[in-house]
Amino acid sequence: MIKQISSSANPLIKKIRALARKRQRSRSGFFLAEGERLALQAEAAGIRPHYLLFSQETRGQPGTRALVDRMAAAGVLCIETSRQLLSQITRRQNTQDVVAVYQQRHLPLAALDIGAHSLWVALEEVRDPGNLGTILRSADAVGAGGVLLLGDSCDPYSLEAVRASMGSVFTVPFALCRLEELVQWCHAGSGRLIGTSLQSQRQLDAMGMASGRPIVLLMGGEQSGLSKDAMAACHELVRIPMRGAAQSLNLAVATGVMLYSLWGAEGYPGARPCPDAVRAPGDP
Amino acid sequence: MIKQISSSANPLIKKIRALARKRQRSRSGFFLAEGERLALQAEAAGIRPHYLLFSQETRGQPGTRALVDRMAAAGVLCIETSRQLLSQITRRQNTQDVVAVYQQRHLPLAALDIGAHSLWVALEEVRDPGNLGTILRSADAVGAGGVLLLGDSCDPYSLEAVRASMGSVFTVPFALCRLEELVQWCHAGSGRLIGTSLQSQRQLDAMGMASGRPIVLLMGGEQSGLSKDAMAACHELVRIPMRGAAQSLNLAVATGVMLYSLWGAEGYPGARPCPDAVRAPGDP
Repeated sequence: MIKQISSSANPLIKKIRALARKRQRSRSGFFLAEGERLALQAEAAGIRPHYLLFSQETRGQPGTRALVDRMAAAGVLCIETSRQLLSQITRRQNTQDVVAVYQQRHLPLAALDIGAHSLWVALEEVRDPGNLGTILRSADAVGAGGVLLLGDSCDPYSLEAVRASMGSVFTVPFALCRLEELVQWCHAGSGRLIGTSLQSQRQLDAMGMASGRPIVLLMGGEQSGLSKDAMAACHELVRIPMRGAAQSLNLAVATGVMLYSLWGAEGYPGARPCPDAVRAPGDP
Repeated sequence: MIKQISSSANPLIKKIRALARKRQRSRSGFFLAEGERLALQAEAAGIRPHYLLFSQETRGQPGTRALVDRMAAAGVLCIETSRQLLSQITRRQNTQDVVAVYQQRHLPLAALDIGAHSLWVALEEVRDPGNLGTILRSADAVGAGGVLLLGDSCDPYSLEAVRASMGSVFTVPFALCRLEELVQWCHAGSGRLIGTSLQSQRQLDAMGMASGRPIVLLMGGEQSGLSKDAMAACHELVRIPMRGAAQSLNLAVATGVMLYSLWGAEGYPGARPCPDAVRAPGDP
């Protein structure tokens, strides 16, 4: 069904606008995702929005109209509105022409089968939504089983986290849990909990990863890294080596470096020297 | 010298406020850095601010006052002002109690000695200042020789880039240049230009890095990756492997993964298996 709404005083629009606030997201169980690209990624993952809003300007965009028509045919309430109103909803000046409302999908930890994947990510008190979204994207790229959020984490369903996830918020399972629950889940599934710490004596490439056991990579928050309890719970603590003036890496970068090191330690499937690698003319 | 200024109409304050805009930064050759931590990192790198602004609230913060006193003694004009005015300068609601103004240090490419370092980073048309600052930080962490910005890059001296760099804007040399200049510089110094591309057949771990020649890692922008010309100029193009639904990594994460892979290929200095690695009780 397609409906036109132009007033910001419309009750449904007011309800949707309120999703920019965490309290309203938690209360309603919905969240906002901006942009046609995210809507297509959700569709590819078999996830339909609750509402799809689009601007009048999409009239000249056949691809976008086809998306709207597919969603409307599938029973989604599609709302044609103004760019100005979409900007109010996403709180961005140059917002996109498509904004959709989806249902949150927090899983209980018990629903995740640790043995089904060789690699998992757990984050303790991550505070920056851009970092969290970026980590979801990296976890997705390495085929991690899911992302587990410990303690007082920022909301993976904030506009900024969803935007930074580039669609991985739809494809990577995640669960909120306490450290004790994580440890028990990991233990029950014979997983290895590997943490990172600047204080560890053990460097990244000294790890023997080919244990055959699932690995849960545990990363601490931006401010102070892993808590003492979390460090004590780890089977191994490793330090990412550094040799410059910077004392640490950005959390999302550190997580990406660790994920690729852990994956690479098993050998990337299909990796092989390629004789046809592109070479510049004149290079031996 | 310490001066008190409370009016936002003060000409010096107006001049400093204008540094939030790129045009004024380019015209003046100065930039803003927020926070005591950055000011201390600059000091550690031997770099003094042109002006140091601090809030009245620092009266109860002996460490901050000691920094102000050191700077004032070294001839820096230190300005005591209100938190409100500092917020206006940095355009943030909860800004920090110290904001300093520094001179920009763009180097000409010819001033950088490629042979003095084994690893360099070049970025083509990076657009997100948070990514750029984060990459400066990663480049610093791996001890790269510097960061070279090609084409229409965002400003490394914007408030957001400086903030994300966590001080590395003071320690990592960087230069603006054109692709042809980079290629010439790389060629003259027997460097290897290694680019990343999602289309490459060659995977990350298939690289033979131990060439003894300096490596220049070339990364494309967020929107469309490396240009055709840049790809053609590379000695090698590699692809970061992926096995999930995400089609790509965030640019700063991809750069971090590449930098650590390239560095790790030489072996991290001092890396060794550590029998004393921290283990959880009961873990074999």
